[in-house]
Amino acid sequence: MAQLEVFPNPHPGRDYQIRHACPEFTSVCPKTGQPDFGTIEIVYVPDRLCVELKGLKLYLQAFRSKGIFYEDVVNVILDDLVRAVAPRRMTVEGRFAVRGGISSVVTASHEASPRGRRRKR
Amino acid sequence: MAQLEVFPNPHPGRDYQIRHACPEFTSVCPKTGQPDFGTIEIVYVPDRLCVELKGLKLYLQAFRSKGIFYEDVVNVILDDLVRAVAPRRMTVEGRFAVRGGISSVVTASHEASPRGRRRKR
Amino acid sequence: MAQLEVFPNPHPGRDYQIRHACPEFTSVCPKTGQPDFGTIEIVYVPDRLCVELKGLKLYLQAFRSKGIFYEDVVNVILDDLVRAVAPRRMTVEGRFAVRGGISSVVTASHEASPRGRRRKR
Amino acid sequence: MAQLEVFPNPHPGRDYQIRHACPEFTSVCPKTGQPDFGTIEIVYVPDRLCVELKGLKLYLQAFRSKGIFYEDVVNVILDDLVRAVAPRRMTVEGRFAVRGGISSVVTASHEASPRGRRRKR
Amino acid sequence: MAQLEVFPNPHPGRDYQIRHACPEFTSVCPKTGQPDFGTIEIVYVPDRLCVELKGLKLYLQAFRSKGIFYEDVVNVILDDLVRAVAPRRMTVEGRFAVRGGISSVVTASHEASPRGRRRKR
Amino acid sequence: MAQLEVFPNPHPGRDYQIRHACPEFTSVCPKTGQPDFGTIEIVYVPDRLCVELKGLKLYLQAFRSKGIFYEDVVNVILDDLVRAVAPRRMTVEGRFAVRGGISSVVTASHEASPRGRRRKR
Amino acid sequence: MAQLEVFPNPHPGRDYQIRHACPEFTSVCPKTGQPDFGTIEIVYVPDRLCVELKGLKLYLQAFRSKGIFYEDVVNVILDDLVRAVAPRRMTVEGRFAVRGGISSVVTASHEASPRGRRRKR
Amino acid sequence: MAQLEVFPNPHPGRDYQIRHACPEFTSVCPKTGQPDFGTIEIVYVPDRLCVELKGLKLYLQAFRSKGIFYEDVVNVILDDLVRAVAPRRMTVEGRFAVRGGISSVVTASHEASPRGRRRKR
Amino acid sequence: MAQLEVFPNPHPGRDYQIRHACPEFTSVCPKTGQPDFGTIEIVYVPDRLCVELKGLKLYLQAFRSKGIFYEDVVNVILDDLVRAVAPRRMTVEGRFAVRGGISSVVTASHEASPRGRRRKR
Amino acid sequence: MAQLEVFPNPHPGRDYQIRHACPEFTSVCPKTGQPDFGTIEIVYVPDRLCVELKGLKLYLQAFRSKGIFYEDVVNVILDDLVRAVAPRRMTVEGRFAVRGGISSVVTASHEASPRGRRRKR
Repeated sequence: MAQLEVFPNPHPGRDYQIRHACPEFTSVCPKTGQPDFGTIEIVYVPDRLCVELKGLKLYLQAFRSKGIFYEDVVNVILDDLVRAVAPRRMTVEGRFAVRGGISSVVTASHEASPRGRRRKR
Repeated sequence: MAQLEVFPNPHPGRDYQIRHACPEFTSVCPKTGQPDFGTIEIVYVPDRLCVELKGLKLYLQAFRSKGIFYEDVVNVILDDLVRAVAPRRMTVEGRFAVRGGISSVVTASHEASPRGRRRKR
Repeated sequence: MAQLEVFPNPHPGRDYQIRHACPEFTSVCPKTGQPDFGTIEIVYVPDRLCVELKGLKLYLQAFRSKGIFYEDVVNVILDDLVRAVAPRRMTVEGRFAVRGGISSVVTASHEASPRGRRRKR
Repeated sequence: MAQLEVFPNPHPGRDYQIRHACPEFTSVCPKTGQPDFGTIEIVYVPDRLCVELKGLKLYLQAFRSKGIFYEDVVNVILDDLVRAVAPRRMTVEGRFAVRGGISSVVTASHEASPRGRRRKR
Repeated sequence: MAQLEVFPNPHPGRDYQIRHACPEFTSVCPKTGQPDFGTIEIVYVPDRLCVELKGLKLYLQAFRSKGIFYEDVVNVILDDLVRAVAPRRMTVEGRFAVRGGISSVVTASHEASPRGRRRKR
Repeated sequence: MAQLEVFPNPHPGRDYQIRHACPEFTSVCPKTGQPDFGTIEIVYVPDRLCVELKGLKLYLQAFRSKGIFYEDVVNVILDDLVRAVAPRRMTVEGRFAVRGGISSVVTASHEASPRGRRRKR
Repeated sequence: MAQLEVFPNPHPGRDYQIRHACPEFTSVCPKTGQPDFGTIEIVYVPDRLCVELKGLKLYLQAFRSKGIFYEDVVNVILDDLVRAVAPRRMTVEGRFAVRGGISSVVTASHEASPRGRRRKR
Repeated sequence: MAQLEVFPNPHPGRDYQIRHACPEFTSVCPKTGQPDFGTIEIVYVPDRLCVELKGLKLYLQAFRSKGIFYEDVVNVILDDLVRAVAPRRMTVEGRFAVRGGISSVVTASHEASPRGRRRKR
Repeated sequence: MAQLEVFPNPHPGRDYQIRHACPEFTSVCPKTGQPDFGTIEIVYVPDRLCVELKGLKLYLQAFRSKGIFYEDVVNVILDDLVRAVAPRRMTVEGRFAVRGGISSVVTASHEASPRGRRRKR
Repeated sequence: MAQLEVFPNPHPGRDYQIRHACPEFTSVCPKTGQPDFGTIEIVYVPDRLCVELKGLKLYLQAFRSKGIFYEDVVNVILDDLVRAVAPRRMTVEGRFAVRGGISSVVTASHEASPRGRRRKR
């Protein structure tokens, strides 16, 4: 996997929200070997670190030839990003293209526990 | 009815949400024998099991020649899915095409009781 | 007025929601005698009874030659439907076409009192 | 039928186009007695006369309780308007709401013959 | 196959256009046995006969359990309708839902030959 | 200023909501003398009185040649309407056209104090 | 009426097209005294002169208190602009808001005759 | 490159049009090595052969790891398809995602020469 | 930086909301020197002062040749506006164009502390 | 001005079309000094050369601090591109943001003369 880059949050004294949307996500279905397509959206409140855009792009491109299910894609991205920037809270959503007449969306969230924040809706 | 297939939730340690939308649903009106058309949307938080997409497609296709009212369609799908994957919570919505100048939407939800969660809005 | 038809709620053990939208509503302005046009949307949680679609269509068509104000249309439909199906809760909304450069929407709700439910937003 | 009103074209020396769209058209199906709903659009190049808007509104309202097929609606409106304003050319289109899962559009045109104009696309 | 019903064109003296759109079309893929979904649109200029809406609905419903390719669906409907109403000209278009990440549209036209009309765009 | 007309609320026993939207609002900028354009939307829960539509239209038209800032427009309309119909609660929103590359929206609300209602969102 | 300002076409050697759209047009109905609202769109191929934007804005604002019919509005603007800039060709379209349930569009064109150009599309 | 599959045109006696749209196209920029994303649309009139959908999907997927410019993508697909099905006429269009703030569309067409058809639109 | 202009809130006795949206924002990426494009939206409840529109336009234009990251843009604008008008509460959102296949949105809020208001959602 | 880069047309034997759209164009009004914003769209049929995307981006960015009228922007870009790639035909369109309540579009075209091609539709 490509390396996620980070940089210091320039305004750590304030809770504010950053949203990145990448409509150019593609991976491979581990059962059929067929390509899957989707949009990955990342929403987070930074603590001390922000994720750098170019590294994020390369990180997401690294799924291009990886066999992985939708449910895993979203949870793995969330785990990797939480490990990289330790956000106050973060949500990752994957919206995937129609397969067999059915479209799918997977959404997972993380909230920093020591700060005792309410789980965001 | 076709058999719903399930697989183990790969990230059971986290509450996350899965949404499947099937705009290609069709059944038969039990009163008139005419075909009904609609979109079925399933939103759930998995516990130990996830519903497998191909089996879900076949399960929904099995309504194709079944005579059944809108209100039943949605509640029966919810009951069958709850029985199959025992989700932490689940909502099923059916949005049906215009009949007699009137369009209809039926929405039903289930929440796992032992865990004492609040009913989701 | 046409007779509203009802049928037993097939899943009374569960709170679930039904929405019917009729974009083909027309009545007559009691002041000017001009026709009014609008969309009537009915959202409810059934208790023991559901409203039957064909009867609902005929009931709404019966306003076609009736002189009645917007505010009355919505409240009268709500009263008649509450009387017919005694829902757990119900909202009726009328969205009316532009008159004098102004469009109007009227929304009224009812909640069954003995069950002590919170007024739905 | 209500009387169509006309007024002299204020710029008869120039070919120019007038379009009136009425989304509040309703008539009655002669077979079922059920109300039909649609939008009537009238596009014309006036010669010596223009159709007056208020009279047009009343003329279209007069279909409210008339039993008539879609194909007739459009051709009858075209005939009546051609008789009233003798336009250089005119098109009438009726776009009707869904019946039996099928929506319908009927379009008819007229061109003044003595002036030998090319049929407009 | 269900019987197409026809009725006499009420305005045969004028070339005018009728368009019927049915978004509730479904047939079966002859290779996979899976249901296909699509919208069928029929545009024609009637000669002596028009196609009746209720019969058209039943005719299109008869494809529900028929195994047939997209290319055939559109050409067969065109052939059957031309045989039934002998229109001055007619176009049938089928717009089919995504299969394998690819959506498809098939369009076929017919023009009455003895009348020597120009092929319509 | 034109006179606002009122009429008795036909269903005072129930809290219900009325929304009027007027996209044809225009006033004059007091600094530049240039016309301003916008949409005024009024949402309220009537108590004993409703605002009459024709009077409302004339009242809003009276701003046509008035020099007044956006912030004042919305607050003045709210004050005048509250004085006229004493609603249980009311919100007025003005959405104004682009000036200098910037569009503006002003929103103000009122809630009847003696009834101790919660401020509506 | 305000004065239209012009400036020399910077590229007279080439036929090219300029389109100005003003969605903030308002005038007064000469019959009822009520304000009318619409969008004026001007499309032209300049010859030696272009119309200056600020003067055009003031010219259109001068209709604000003028009693004039839709058909006149469009033809008068076309006449005034043709007189001011003598374009190779020009079209003026007025799209007016709903009155009595009917919306109206009036479109008029001019083409410079001595140059013997084909009427465009 | 994957093999394109073909099947006999079931209605060769009639000129009719087939359109396939694939919004899940991806290739690699030969200069930067970065993935490109786009939609490929194929429109053709079949002669003796039609292109089979599953083979088309696999053929388009084979560009996934290929370094190739936009202009080449579209012309190469057109050449390969013309060679495979020898259509009466065919257009291929690639609509590519934003790069450096600029989105691009490339469109190429082919027409069978011996039949001397007029190129339409 | 340009000077923000303010004026006294004409209705300080009421909490009401003002929203300004500027879709014409541009700055420069400090790493690449390339221009960035976005929309800045400012929503606030004024206390004693309002921000004047023309000064706001000039203030936002001053970013045109400034090298600054997205995260800074939004927080700096919020800080400057809070300092200028001391609002009861304010949110600034920047929605930025696609870079490297990823679009970004940054949102930051401020609430006046002495008044002990709840943080707005 | 930045240098436009070109590369050899990889398929010169076929007329095909390339369209580039840049929604991130900005220049400066020579009269007021205020920034202008718009979208530039370039459509052309290449002959021996194609315009390279990165150079095109830099070329368009060079207008950022240039004082120039809308009419000039479009004609200058067309002249520069025609000089750089000598296309078979080319159209440049600039769609500019609202100023004084009026939005503007300027469109200019070029066709290679020696080849005697028909003017493009």
